[in-house]
Amino acid sequence: MLKCQICKATYPDVFRLKCDCGGLLDVVNEFEKPLEDLLNSDYLDIRRYLNLLPVNQKTLPSLTPPITPVIERKIEGMKVLFKLEYLMPSGSFKDRGTYVTVAKLKEEGIKEISLDSSGNAAISFALFGKAENIRVHVFIPKHTSEGKKKLLRLLKAEIHEIDGSRMEVHEKAQEFKGATYVSHWYNPYFLEGTKLTAYEAFEQIGEVEYVIIPTGSGSLFLGLYKGFKELERFGKIKKIPKLIAVQAKGFESLGKRSKEKNMLGEGIAIPEPPRKEQIKSALKESKGVHISVSEEETKKALEELRSMGFIVEATSAVGYAGFKLLLKKELLKENSKTLMPLTGSGFKSLTL
Amino acid sequence: MLKCQICKATYPDVFRLKCDCGGLLDVVNEFEKPLEDLLNSDYLDIRRYLNLLPVNQKTLPSLTPPITPVIERKIEGMKVLFKLEYLMPSGSFKDRGTYVTVAKLKEEGIKEISLDSSGNAAISFALFGKAENIRVHVFIPKHTSEGKKKLLRLLKAEIHEIDGSRMEVHEKAQEFKGATYVSHWYNPYFLEGTKLTAYEAFEQIGEVEYVIIPTGSGSLFLGLYKGFKELERFGKIKKIPKLIAVQAKGFESLGKRSKEKNMLGEGIAIPEPPRKEQIKSALKESKGVHISVSEEETKKALEELRSMGFIVEATSAVGYAGFKLLLKKELLKENSKTLMPLTGSGFKSLTL
Ligand SMILES: [Zn+2]
Ligand SMILES: [Zn+2]
Repeated sequence: MLKCQICKATYPDVFRLKCDCGGLLDVVNEFEKPLEDLLNSDYLDIRRYLNLLPVNQKTLPSLTPPITPVIERKIEGMKVLFKLEYLMPSGSFKDRGTYVTVAKLKEEGIKEISLDSSGNAAISFALFGKAENIRVHVFIPKHTSEGKKKLLRLLKAEIHEIDGSRMEVHEKAQEFKGATYVSHWYNPYFLEGTKLTAYEAFEQIGEVEYVIIPTGSGSLFLGLYKGFKELERFGKIKKIPKLIAVQAKGFESLGKRSKEKNMLGEGIAIPEPPRKEQIKSALKESKGVHISVSEEETKKALEELRSMGFIVEATSAVGYAGFKLLLKKELLKENSKTLMPLTGSGFKSLTL
Repeated sequence: MLKCQICKATYPDVFRLKCDCGGLLDVVNEFEKPLEDLLNSDYLDIRRYLNLLPVNQKTLPSLTPPITPVIERKIEGMKVLFKLEYLMPSGSFKDRGTYVTVAKLKEEGIKEISLDSSGNAAISFALFGKAENIRVHVFIPKHTSEGKKKLLRLLKAEIHEIDGSRMEVHEKAQEFKGATYVSHWYNPYFLEGTKLTAYEAFEQIGEVEYVIIPTGSGSLFLGLYKGFKELERFGKIKKIPKLIAVQAKGFESLGKRSKEKNMLGEGIAIPEPPRKEQIKSALKESKGVHISVSEEETKKALEELRSMGFIVEATSAVGYAGFKLLLKKELLKENSKTLMPLTGSGFKSLTL
């Protein structure tokens, strides 16, 4: 069931971006069984968690995301648990949200969609759309990396390049007629996909103290929040971990905006995310913090990640840069466990 | 234990490429328990199969490959089960072999290695080497794609570019002194990694009639053969599937060499694979066949794979082109199940 954040109206589990009142919608799940009974151990992929999703299991997308590995490294006395969310069919964590969204679109026979994206979400929807014969209109900023554009062309997406800010791209996409707008900025089903990262991580490594998340629209942040909340409700964890939202300097939406601009956070440079208040309240509830990092810090973090064997894109390094900053400021509890999703593959941009 | 193919001498499970007599070595495993008891369900990644590997579990590489998803598609009445072997930390199935090899290298404290490769194996070893502080010398043909070279530089591999044929690159690497040569053309541990594809596939989809494999050095082909042989010994399958080796025209090692050259099979353009006789005998035992495909057929297959949502490199499409050719010739049993590993990510070359 969907529930409006403002007027509390409810809707059945159909595809819908907003309430009639304009409010944002959340998926509300009622689970009647313990988690053990809901996990489907017949599957060695994301379908292990199918019973936790509000989808018809008969119209699943053919492309199935893997369960991503978690790599443990000791860094300055801390256990950091990198989750390789970039090992996905389209090379980013977005495939989780796309998977659930496309399942809903298929349920309803929707064959033409539109969205705006700085790159990864566009590639993800273009890929899943191609596989399911759904026509995909993507609105992207003109400055999107050439590698990503090439990929979109190859996937035969209908590309609408907009010469303007990220927010202008967003407006153009919303104005577009004739296709179902599926933006992950609103889309409540997208978060159902990204929440699975929390379930997987819980099964892989148990409880953690911190989760560090590059945060723009909040599609990963709020998914993780939701996943951990559900795990808490299932009685599997005593409380949700502290969520730490890391943003790129100059593009902060949660705190004061820096004058200095970190141009390496392409994927999270979203000045006004529609779910901002929801992010803030999740931060508060989890006793987490938001911080922002510079371009220099991001570059250094990217280099370090590569040394550890993670070929990721710069946006993924924003989270790790945040971790290093918190370490430096001695804001993390000693010997603690930190979950760090690595969000996007470096292959898409590196080779240019 | 290692066993020589020629003189039948045996060696303990240490890192070794060849027998003292020059013969090729195979890993011989004795399993004393049923498969169920050996699977480690605590892990949701490749470590599920650790007890099937001849490695010390205390010196595993930190980078853990995922269990790759299998995607089922109906194609002209056949069930094709695509296994996404490209969703790996370095973007190719080679990571499986590298994982086991690096585990052995770590066991023995080896800190400097050399290998020759057309690209993917080099990237895989460079990545795992970087993560484990092992210095990696890679010998590559000058015509290796620019994307792959850039990646190797980024991973700080010691690159030795050789202006010559693939076989000349191979000779130069072998002559190189001062590092342990780990070529997957000989390395018996590499096949222990790639055999896991068979185990995973068996758990995911049960028995299949055919397995279609792009085949150059045989590092995937022989791994799959080994995996299915072990499954047969465990009593899990009645007989091993028919193995189908697909090669690129002009680079056939198993059959008559075509005059026409298919330049899209970069990863499998190996005129004289050391394990050729072993491949032939596995082909014969499984009642399989070898075929070769043209550049045109490969290109078309790549296009089709992309339509299905698989962003893979051209070498991966060689297998699918082979499948289409067999379909056209009506050489596949109706309604049969075919396992098709998709070997390498398209991201590394696409974006150039
Ligand atoms: Zn409302
Ligand atoms: Zn011998």
